[in-house]
Amino acid sequence: MLAIIMLIQDAGARLAAQGPKPMVRIAKILVDSAQLDAYRTALKEGITTAVRVEPGVLTMFAVYDKDRPTHVTVLEVYRDEEAYQSHLKTSHFAKYKMTTQGMVKALELVDVVPIGLETKPGP
Amino acid sequence: MLAIIMLIQDAGARLAAQGPKPMVRIAKILVDSAQLDAYRTALKEGITTAVRVEPGVLTMFAVYDKDRPTHVTVLEVYRDEEAYQSHLKTSHFAKYKMTTQGMVKALELVDVVPIGLETKPGP
Repeated sequence: MLAIIMLIQDAGARLAAQGPKPMVRIAKILVDSAQLDAYRTALKEGITTAVRVEPGVLTMFAVYDKDRPTHVTVLEVYRDEEAYQSHLKTSHFAKYKMTTQGMVKALELVDVVPIGLETKPGP
Repeated sequence: MLAIIMLIQDAGARLAAQGPKPMVRIAKILVDSAQLDAYRTALKEGITTAVRVEPGVLTMFAVYDKDRPTHVTVLEVYRDEEAYQSHLKTSHFAKYKMTTQGMVKALELVDVVPIGLETKPGP
């Protein structure tokens, strides 16, 4: 039973345990249709590095619409506003912005409030 | 003939090694402005239960727009199509649908393809 309880950890509980108010955002990105593969590669590298090396970057889920591959959505969870500001100053974020500046046709940033951030623990 | 059979087996093994294909979706929900709290409570309960008790429900991140609280977004990750079909038959999903049927004014389901699903491991 204890093992089960320990296994059942969700992102919301982790956030609550960490105290500060998480910053959650959805980025909606319109990508040049001629550069989809290059854009996805750059985005994948940027988010993988951010979650791996930045203590305050908790989650980055990036997807594209199956029927409209130029429409990319990224759900971003930072530990707090400070973690987000810190993210903007990293070299991997600068590299992502440099690499993709000619690929992104539109960018909309939507601040959102979590209702529930539930995910299974990793393998 | 033996060589052909061995080739076919090899291809099968490679496909199997790739594992099941996750099903990822974004649900965009427009909620009756008079019932926001009740809706959020029902949604939170539904997704918490799904991720906790269903082996094939990997992630459910639910948020609402800070500037438009009637606009809810849920990013859902199922292990595969079968896990999603199984989810639709659960009692907690039926309860969520029953409870919220008078609260949801519009529902759009968008199939998406993952570029990267990066999240920190639990504590």
